[in-house]
Amino acid sequence: MSRPVRTEIVQPDGRHVYLYGDFAPAPDGYQAPSMPTGVYQRLWNPLRREWVLVAASRQARTFLPERVDCPLCPSRPGHATEIPASGFEAAVFENRFPAMVPARPAGGSCEVVVYTDEHEGSFATLSASRLTRLAEVWTDRYRELIGRRGVRYVFIFENRGEQVGVTLHHPHGQIYAYPFTPPVAATELRRRSGGCLLCQQIDDERKGRRRVLIDEGGVVAYVPGYARWAYEVHVASQAHRPALTALTPSARQALLATMQRIARAYDRLFDVPMPYMMAMHQAAAGQPAPQAHLHVEFYPILRDRGKLKYLAGSESGAGVFINDTLAEESADRLRAVLA
Amino acid sequence: MSRPVRTEIVQPDGRHVYLYGDFAPAPDGYQAPSMPTGVYQRLWNPLRREWVLVAASRQARTFLPERVDCPLCPSRPGHATEIPASGFEAAVFENRFPAMVPARPAGGSCEVVVYTDEHEGSFATLSASRLTRLAEVWTDRYRELIGRRGVRYVFIFENRGEQVGVTLHHPHGQIYAYPFTPPVAATELRRRSGGCLLCQQIDDERKGRRRVLIDEGGVVAYVPGYARWAYEVHVASQAHRPALTALTPSARQALLATMQRIARAYDRLFDVPMPYMMAMHQAAAGQPAPQAHLHVEFYPILRDRGKLKYLAGSESGAGVFINDTLAEESADRLRAVLA
Repeated sequence: MSRPVRTEIVQPDGRHVYLYGDFAPAPDGYQAPSMPTGVYQRLWNPLRREWVLVAASRQARTFLPERVDCPLCPSRPGHATEIPASGFEAAVFENRFPAMVPARPAGGSCEVVVYTDEHEGSFATLSASRLTRLAEVWTDRYRELIGRRGVRYVFIFENRGEQVGVTLHHPHGQIYAYPFTPPVAATELRRRSGGCLLCQQIDDERKGRRRVLIDEGGVVAYVPGYARWAYEVHVASQAHRPALTALTPSARQALLATMQRIARAYDRLFDVPMPYMMAMHQAAAGQPAPQAHLHVEFYPILRDRGKLKYLAGSESGAGVFINDTLAEESADRLRAVLA
Repeated sequence: MSRPVRTEIVQPDGRHVYLYGDFAPAPDGYQAPSMPTGVYQRLWNPLRREWVLVAASRQARTFLPERVDCPLCPSRPGHATEIPASGFEAAVFENRFPAMVPARPAGGSCEVVVYTDEHEGSFATLSASRLTRLAEVWTDRYRELIGRRGVRYVFIFENRGEQVGVTLHHPHGQIYAYPFTPPVAATELRRRSGGCLLCQQIDDERKGRRRVLIDEGGVVAYVPGYARWAYEVHVASQAHRPALTALTPSARQALLATMQRIARAYDRLFDVPMPYMMAMHQAAAGQPAPQAHLHVEFYPILRDRGKLKYLAGSESGAGVFINDTLAEESADRLRAVLA
């Protein structure tokens, strides 16, 4: 694959901005916002065997600003945003309120991916050309970050909606480059006998069909039987591919197009913008594990019209999720609103 | 220990109710509410290596009823509640909208623990005598459930506040008897060399003192360095004891009194009733693992006045928690409101 057109800018506080595709230069006199000092720690919980990140500058982070103050919009005279451009296709910048910073314990970083310079809309409403651009951006960021010294895992994700804690409405996602393999990835990627579990699972779902929503162009979307969330959907490439970088451009486009159809169905399900998390699971750094099979998990947090799923004692204190919904019925309801 | 005074009642739908201490009989004509039919499943997620419980009758469960309709209050003429008594000290009943039912896959059960017959108040405001009664109730339920065929783990917990999904305000907690060892317990109880981690941790915290809130009567409360939540507090018996049943009555009382002081501090911290989860971790069924050391974890979900901690992409999709607060500073703030 040819590298995408990318322009790299280093802000005065050392943070990188990457502009993908065409862009118009920043207005005269642009002054980048700068990162506050903060305390960053990485702490090991020996009981749960997990790392916890402490980032004690984040309490001051931007919280639901007015539209005119959006820090993800293009900069204009008198309003310097995070993006040193007065128009752009897609942009990535190192978060000003990160959960981890490079160089402390080891090479963690937090990037914000701005899907478009248009403030309104969402992943579900991106144009086909922006979706293609986003596929390139994600692939480029994964490739660069996974090769960075000290990085063990690159996690592309999106939080959508105020009920998931989102503080900015401009369409965007995030990428965390962890200096360790996170617990969910470690469990998924653990070596075991019998080949790739996800290959097996996709095969089973495609044979059963009962929970399959989309099966087109080498991409499968289904409600897994073991869904934690009422309308959880997994989207996977049917072929065993460890990461975005192992897909052809057209296979990537098929993956993102399927993801977008799911996001659109969510917004139609209860006639409200569905608050959700999107988590992309890919190979860790180094030689891909036999289990590494690229897939995307959507966790929508509404379990019914106006009803949120809460994580309570069983989920948080024991690690056992309780789901009120049968996966097969959820699949039927989602299928009815797929376009 | 002598067994507490306990009266067992079996409702027409087969659910058990246990009344602890004194009680006044149900009003004439009492007719117990009955359990709706539902679909219960237990599904294995081979990727995350976890069980997920599906309970498809719960969507209809009681949601924030008016005070006069509270199903946890004593029954009165014309209002039959879950408790077949017109007055009581403490009561336990099998949940009418459970996450698991006995006999399917294997012996799971869900009990509701009603702390008092008084509708107002909370765990923080229970009288000393009710607190003593509650210690007996928890111990009795743990003893009985952990010995039940098919039960692998007994999880005593409380969800408090609407922001944690609580649908009934009457002071109560819950007990889940899982037919498997939940992931959090499995990790904590895993055998490892070097003795009990919690003994070591308590020792370190007591030496450091910086994060210790209470250290009295053989019970220690502290903000662990690796806290996931801004004001997470762990309460543990200093001596290595696997479960409530291994404590003397006075040691149990000391534990609950310390828990109550923490709950009271939470309500003072931001001058609002703090929404939290309380999780009690004890030994699994069978011979206690060397790591089994009774402790209680409080997860308050406010990270600041009016600000909730949300579980978003990093927490749900990767398993990595991000905390905005330094444990030492949280300990200082909590210490300032301890009484």
